[in-house]
Amino acid sequence: MLVLGLDPGLAVTGWALIDGDGGRLTLRDAGFWATPPNHGEGQRLLSLWDSFSVLVASQAPQSVAVERLYFSRNVSTAMAVSQARGVLVCAASRAGLELHEYTPGQVKQAVTGSGAAPKQQVVKLVRMLLGDGVPLTPDDVADACAVAICHQHAAGLQRALAMGAAR
Amino acid sequence: MLVLGLDPGLAVTGWALIDGDGGRLTLRDAGFWATPPNHGEGQRLLSLWDSFSVLVASQAPQSVAVERLYFSRNVSTAMAVSQARGVLVCAASRAGLELHEYTPGQVKQAVTGSGAAPKQQVVKLVRMLLGDGVPLTPDDVADACAVAICHQHAAGLQRALAMGAAR
Repeated sequence: MLVLGLDPGLAVTGWALIDGDGGRLTLRDAGFWATPPNHGEGQRLLSLWDSFSVLVASQAPQSVAVERLYFSRNVSTAMAVSQARGVLVCAASRAGLELHEYTPGQVKQAVTGSGAAPKQQVVKLVRMLLGDGVPLTPDDVADACAVAICHQHAAGLQRALAMGAAR
Repeated sequence: MLVLGLDPGLAVTGWALIDGDGGRLTLRDAGFWATPPNHGEGQRLLSLWDSFSVLVASQAPQSVAVERLYFSRNVSTAMAVSQARGVLVCAASRAGLELHEYTPGQVKQAVTGSGAAPKQQVVKLVRMLLGDGVPLTPDDVADACAVAICHQHAAGLQRALAMGAAR
């Protein structure tokens, strides 16, 4: 199963394609989409939409994983992120992809074994799991990897449970 | 010039098409798009995208007017609104429409003459300007009318200034 993990943002959106066949996770590709701050909001959101559509058309992931919206900090940052997230969630739905959402705590738990792990530890473990193909900066890429890993684990667990129930 | 005013929301988005030829404003059509709360987020955002696209294709407005994001209240409401707004702004950009943004104060000023007018007065004056075709509920429709009126006024002022400068 090929999962597309996303870490949405208006300025920078991280993305990661992670393959998981029978437990072993492989990084197929990862990167980020940056939109120029001097462009209009509509143009920036449309460029996200287009980048997403091109990637999905060429790589054909089965599902999209993204962090649940959960903010206590700066409201205007939260709103800019939400606009970008809305566009990507809409584009995923239009492409007929399943959307899976996880809280930041669930993502940390899945990657590090602790829901309260510091950010640097998440990045370190993402690179241990997937290799040095995961760039250190911007951290949006490692974050996109982390949420895709979280969904691979959750889906694997669900498969195992379903097999147990069928016996 | 036909202006599409929008009041974005995930649950309810108000819309209004307002014609302005030579100062007189006419309500061509108005309504709202509601998305069922029991549907997934992606499905709801996609239904907004589709509704917008159908309306724009059939009515061919020249530009879109929307309130600038400006929130101090509930962060989770702000984020849900922002997701819907991002989708609509992106769809407008994709349709090649100009996007014009106004602050809540500018909208109130344009409709009532006071930037601090209470909500009920805005609704009352919208109906005085455009007639009883503007429904009283949901208030998202009157809000969409108000931001479209604001853009008609701003565009009219700009035309007048350009004519003055050309003399």
